[in-house]
Amino acid sequence: MKVMVLGADGYLGWPLVLRMVGRGHEVSAADNFYTRKAVDEVGSWSAIPIPSVEDRLKAVIRSFGADVVFKEGDLRDYNFISSFLREERPDAIIDFAEQRSAPYSQIDLNHAVFTMENNVIGTMNLLYAMKEYAPNAHLLKMGTLGEYGTPNVDIAEGYFEVEYHGRKDKLPFPRQAGSWYHWSKVHDSNNISFAVKIWGLTATDVHQGPVYGTRTNDMRDEELRTRFDFDEVWGTVLNRYCVEAVAGIPLTPYGEGGQTRGFISLEDSITALALLLEHPPETGTMRVVNQYAESKSVMELAQMVKREGDALGLKVEIKPVPDPRVEAQRHYYNVERFVLPSLGFKPSRRIADEIPIMLADLMKYKPRLEEKREAILLAGSKAGVEWRQTSSKISKRPNKP
Amino acid sequence: MKVMVLGADGYLGWPLVLRMVGRGHEVSAADNFYTRKAVDEVGSWSAIPIPSVEDRLKAVIRSFGADVVFKEGDLRDYNFISSFLREERPDAIIDFAEQRSAPYSQIDLNHAVFTMENNVIGTMNLLYAMKEYAPNAHLLKMGTLGEYGTPNVDIAEGYFEVEYHGRKDKLPFPRQAGSWYHWSKVHDSNNISFAVKIWGLTATDVHQGPVYGTRTNDMRDEELRTRFDFDEVWGTVLNRYCVEAVAGIPLTPYGEGGQTRGFISLEDSITALALLLEHPPETGTMRVVNQYAESKSVMELAQMVKREGDALGLKVEIKPVPDPRVEAQRHYYNVERFVLPSLGFKPSRRIADEIPIMLADLMKYKPRLEEKREAILLAGSKAGVEWRQTSSKISKRPNKP
Repeated sequence: MKVMVLGADGYLGWPLVLRMVGRGHEVSAADNFYTRKAVDEVGSWSAIPIPSVEDRLKAVIRSFGADVVFKEGDLRDYNFISSFLREERPDAIIDFAEQRSAPYSQIDLNHAVFTMENNVIGTMNLLYAMKEYAPNAHLLKMGTLGEYGTPNVDIAEGYFEVEYHGRKDKLPFPRQAGSWYHWSKVHDSNNISFAVKIWGLTATDVHQGPVYGTRTNDMRDEELRTRFDFDEVWGTVLNRYCVEAVAGIPLTPYGEGGQTRGFISLEDSITALALLLEHPPETGTMRVVNQYAESKSVMELAQMVKREGDALGLKVEIKPVPDPRVEAQRHYYNVERFVLPSLGFKPSRRIADEIPIMLADLMKYKPRLEEKREAILLAGSKAGVEWRQTSSKISKRPNKP
Repeated sequence: MKVMVLGADGYLGWPLVLRMVGRGHEVSAADNFYTRKAVDEVGSWSAIPIPSVEDRLKAVIRSFGADVVFKEGDLRDYNFISSFLREERPDAIIDFAEQRSAPYSQIDLNHAVFTMENNVIGTMNLLYAMKEYAPNAHLLKMGTLGEYGTPNVDIAEGYFEVEYHGRKDKLPFPRQAGSWYHWSKVHDSNNISFAVKIWGLTATDVHQGPVYGTRTNDMRDEELRTRFDFDEVWGTVLNRYCVEAVAGIPLTPYGEGGQTRGFISLEDSITALALLLEHPPETGTMRVVNQYAESKSVMELAQMVKREGDALGLKVEIKPVPDPRVEAQRHYYNVERFVLPSLGFKPSRRIADEIPIMLADLMKYKPRLEEKREAILLAGSKAGVEWRQTSSKISKRPNKP
């Protein structure tokens, strides 16, 4: 199969390139390197140092004997994506090429507008380019479980049977996102569903929970590693806790810590995505997938990291900080999953088993964490991103990619 | 009350300026004159000639003795909208400043992207400017009933009680829009609901059905008239039928003609909007309003225009054309309304009574309709906008406003 990975330089993009190459697929890839710049913008970097893309590609040749076609480019440029599709004619396209941080989107107007424009217009360009040059390709779009918010009922997998005033229909499950970033993903989901409807494109919309982990099974040596973000803006919760534990900083759950989400390890995320790519939905249809392995509250996660960290002699403290987000701190949370189980997917990693691996991996890079101590300490500080404010002190203008 | 009308040069914007001035409110107004240019782009014009905005404002002084503060500007320019809000500090803001045509958004990629960017980014700028300079103002946002699509259940007014797997919640009613334009309005609705949630803004999201009519009660003389679009791209269905009847062209329902929508006269639309402006929702909340007067199928409308036209001796024919849209041609349609009836709103016009008034008004401008015969004949022609295509022959690039 010919697979195109958009956003191939990222936390998930890079491991998926490795997995698809390892499984014998022909891989093309693109990135605009925005995440590298935007993490720098908030005064941080990847805990695990990552090579330049040129060196990454050479490492793939050395380890897998496979040539990946790589192009630097931006989905906001229709000419870029349309000519890349015309040249490559992929069977499947996976789109990670989006601004992926909720706090980043909440920094101020410019970051909110950048997020909307980058994600929504990038997806529009991709859809039109597919219609023109890859109408039969399968689009796998990375979305987020955050699109659903935290309703007081079970969260359906995309669609649900509704009975209202005695009549019935199958309707899209209501979305109640919690940041401009999450809303931009809802807009994308809606726009993709419409392109499927009018043009008969084929798409899978993956609503994934927060991903954690420092490695996949494909990362045989150092130069194949993926980035690992840990600052308040770019790091996800469990990854940040592990870095806080290693750096000797108290873990920082938000508020009461009852915010519950569905988590998945990097290894299992990549396995699930490969499975979905290798099993596309019926041509001309939109498939929605809820992708996660374990539901935990952020306080439970903190306690797990403390337990594992203490066992390694790290003396981990937990110090809740005021919740910068506008969200329910205790709520019902039950997310339905049918598609991945029906394809035989079974998570191979549990959070409790993965934390010690992450802590051990991160210990090696302790000096890199110390050097960016300020970016870690943003959590709960006055300088951090606050959902109720229009602007924070981090930055007034996003980098131009 | 200080009211700001954004998109004040348009079909609804201008009559609302007149109404608010007539009711003694202090009115400020803005427009970027995009509709004038974009109607020209598709080879058409307003059936009823409209004066320049300078002459319009003079006419308001003559007829109402009221000075309207007008600024030319674009909501995509944050500096424009933020300084206008800072100067005017309105109590209420009504936003018509959007690309408002479904077919226009479907012309090609550039028109689709223009629609998304103009509407979504314009609204983001407005929300951030309100947060900064008018946090207590009431935002009345023009949306569309088309955001809901045509589900097989009653359409709730924004939110509905859901019972799912034995648990209950009040959730946003699912949206299933039918064009890029309609989806851009859904994105706006979602973004506004989020700004209300995190910043405590106050908003009314009006889901209005197609508007018809040539005049409101405030249009005492010719120079106060509003624009009236009739071409395939910018005209709404009943207005187009009336023009076809006057121009001696068969009426053009799409396909089977069972597409049912909720219609409202221009006069009643303006009355309802004024009522909503004068009765804002509770501070810090989002109110959703379904605004229409009568549900009719497009075939029923064609038959009504034929009946009234024939009575005037026009010899009206009906010739269905292939449906360029991807939509159900027969479907259940029942839209709930609670807010406007609770405010005492009662429609004053019926479609059957308004058609003869429209036909008589349009007869006066028959030469202007004849001159743009080609724009009328786009309906059902190969040169028209087709939802299943990425591009039509009308135009490849939208005007830069």
